[in-house]
Amino acid sequence: MEFRIDSIDGNARACTIKTEHSEIKTPIFMPVGTAAAVKSLDAIDMMEILDAPIILGNTYHLYLRPGDEIISKLGGLHGFSGYKRSFLTDSGGFQAFSLGDNVKFTDEGIWFKSHIDGSKHFFSPEKVIDIEYNLNSDIMMVLDDLIALPNTKERIKKSIERTTEWAYRSLVHHVNRGKKNNLFAIIQGGTDFEFRRISAESLVSLEYKGYTFDGFAIGGLSVGEENQLMYDTIEATTPYMPKDKPRYLMGVGTPEDIIEAVERGVDMFDCVMPTRNARNGYLFTTFGTLRIKNAKYKLDESPIDPKCNCYTCRNFSRAYLNHLFKAKELTYFRLASIHNLHYYLNFVKEIREAILEGRFKEYKKEFYSLRAMNSLEI
Amino acid sequence: MEFRIDSIDGNARACTIKTEHSEIKTPIFMPVGTAAAVKSLDAIDMMEILDAPIILGNTYHLYLRPGDEIISKLGGLHGFSGYKRSFLTDSGGFQAFSLGDNVKFTDEGIWFKSHIDGSKHFFSPEKVIDIEYNLNSDIMMVLDDLIALPNTKERIKKSIERTTEWAYRSLVHHVNRGKKNNLFAIIQGGTDFEFRRISAESLVSLEYKGYTFDGFAIGGLSVGEENQLMYDTIEATTPYMPKDKPRYLMGVGTPEDIIEAVERGVDMFDCVMPTRNARNGYLFTTFGTLRIKNAKYKLDESPIDPKCNCYTCRNFSRAYLNHLFKAKELTYFRLASIHNLHYYLNFVKEIREAILEGRFKEYKKEFYSLRAMNSLEI
Ligand SMILES: [Zn+2]
Ligand SMILES: [Zn+2]
Repeated sequence: MEFRIDSIDGNARACTIKTEHSEIKTPIFMPVGTAAAVKSLDAIDMMEILDAPIILGNTYHLYLRPGDEIISKLGGLHGFSGYKRSFLTDSGGFQAFSLGDNVKFTDEGIWFKSHIDGSKHFFSPEKVIDIEYNLNSDIMMVLDDLIALPNTKERIKKSIERTTEWAYRSLVHHVNRGKKNNLFAIIQGGTDFEFRRISAESLVSLEYKGYTFDGFAIGGLSVGEENQLMYDTIEATTPYMPKDKPRYLMGVGTPEDIIEAVERGVDMFDCVMPTRNARNGYLFTTFGTLRIKNAKYKLDESPIDPKCNCYTCRNFSRAYLNHLFKAKELTYFRLASIHNLHYYLNFVKEIREAILEGRFKEYKKEFYSLRAMNSLEI
Repeated sequence: MEFRIDSIDGNARACTIKTEHSEIKTPIFMPVGTAAAVKSLDAIDMMEILDAPIILGNTYHLYLRPGDEIISKLGGLHGFSGYKRSFLTDSGGFQAFSLGDNVKFTDEGIWFKSHIDGSKHFFSPEKVIDIEYNLNSDIMMVLDDLIALPNTKERIKKSIERTTEWAYRSLVHHVNRGKKNNLFAIIQGGTDFEFRRISAESLVSLEYKGYTFDGFAIGGLSVGEENQLMYDTIEATTPYMPKDKPRYLMGVGTPEDIIEAVERGVDMFDCVMPTRNARNGYLFTTFGTLRIKNAKYKLDESPIDPKCNCYTCRNFSRAYLNHLFKAKELTYFRLASIHNLHYYLNFVKEIREAILEGRFKEYKKEFYSLRAMNSLEI
């Protein structure tokens, strides 16, 4: 992976990442394609309509269905899905965490039951790397020990120690397998700033045969804590992350979360929010959130967001989308998802331009004042 | 409406219909867009990806939701949906027929209860024309009295008499309102050849202030009768339909049904089969039906139909579609619908070429022998 900082404005960074499959200008938002498809969209939509340089795949889901070996035989995620740009795959740690009673963490790895057929499986750090090699993921996340917040000091300490141990085993396995593609470590530590520092420093110091991680992620946030506490935790963590490598905040979040994290030095983001909210009728606009089922849109010929030039806004009215949503037409899901993803992708592009032009602070201020108008909503 | 016969081969016809919004080369298959959207697809898909010159809208559904007056204010079906080519709207007769206990036919019209909220509504022939004017439908179907098959002679007789009476009232209302767009009458008569002749002749003879119908449809078939009986009924009906006007077989059917009806002189078709079957995992191919969930496609890198050059077949494999179907990904529905509709649209295009070149019989023979191979299926 090539990595270059194009510009810094305060702590906000505009960088360029080059993988084997695409060039990624940061800050970047990565749409979530859990099962090798961003929900309701296809690879052509992602490349030609949305021009997304990187999307996420989910190791846990793809391992269970269709199976990583099948994907390997079909040309990895790129050949399988037709999306020829970069894939980042999470490690399955978060999914395991989400399985509740159907999971058991040990020092060796994670036992879990499939949500599909109840079958039992075991993810070790090495096993996860093997799966990600089969997927041919451009950016592979290590298996981590994610915990719920709030939690005891003792459990958080255990989590960061185990996460470091697993990260090292992942790195060793990765190097021994020939160091294909790129491997990111995940910083844990809850909302305890001291633990975050320790986790970051210990992961950054890991090395095997001269190799270190290609990037670092902040994991375990946006799991129920207050927004300001999340922002403060990010701010307490990024100073301990290498300047010359990408910084990725996992599973976050709202547009507000993204701009706050960029201000604190984060480069990469992913979240199901734009697609999930789209399906539920919540559409992002420059002026706040628009709830498409609202009766006031029944006769509204304007596009979702008059400032948006996405495929959906160029071709369809609020009135038509209001109708499709209420009639539960499948057509609605793709059109709404395209708009919300366009909003996020365009948003990080605007942030990048502001950083390149040294006016990040002004952009942020304007962003908040527009969003606060919320002129459209109930 | 302009209508021209381009070529006749046996009784099979290749014609050209010109409405205000598009030129339609026949035989034509019209995708069904019940709620002003072909399920899972949008107007750009229909125009640019599938190049369909005409689609159906449903009077009953659009009247209930969003309401024909709303659609009128938003520029009719064309402005509302963004599909700028022709719309044909059915009359609501078939939907009323499908409502079972929630409907009551009288000589004046049809009382029915909304399937959405149970509210009571009345469709008279005039009311239906008013709704279709609001929709700005290019081809409006008259309200008809559709009955289940088999049925008593008495009820069939009543049906054709009422259908003729309602057709006349529709024509009068249409002419008095200024004769916007085009109006088609619907021939009834069950599978009784004599009733079909009477129904056709009486509708063809209707005239008001010098105006007659712009086209004629065969309704009330494909409601449970044997295939051969349906074909025989069509064969017994088309000789009584004007040569110089379009002939439309409503709600039919399989590719086999279509080619049999073309052979008997029918020009236009609609059916939910391609889109509904797509959603249920049944894909049409030159060689028969492919059931995408079949495990043998798990590792199959070939497209659905190697002979197909649709958007889906150009970009995605059976393996990927098998996965999307099993994972219940929304992405699947659009890709499968595009393929099945492409199959139907391409099929009628091939039939047309065969007619123009005077080799309809040979084409039909080849079609059956390929379909009979069914080499792909379980
Ligand atoms: Zn938009
Ligand atoms: Zn195809």
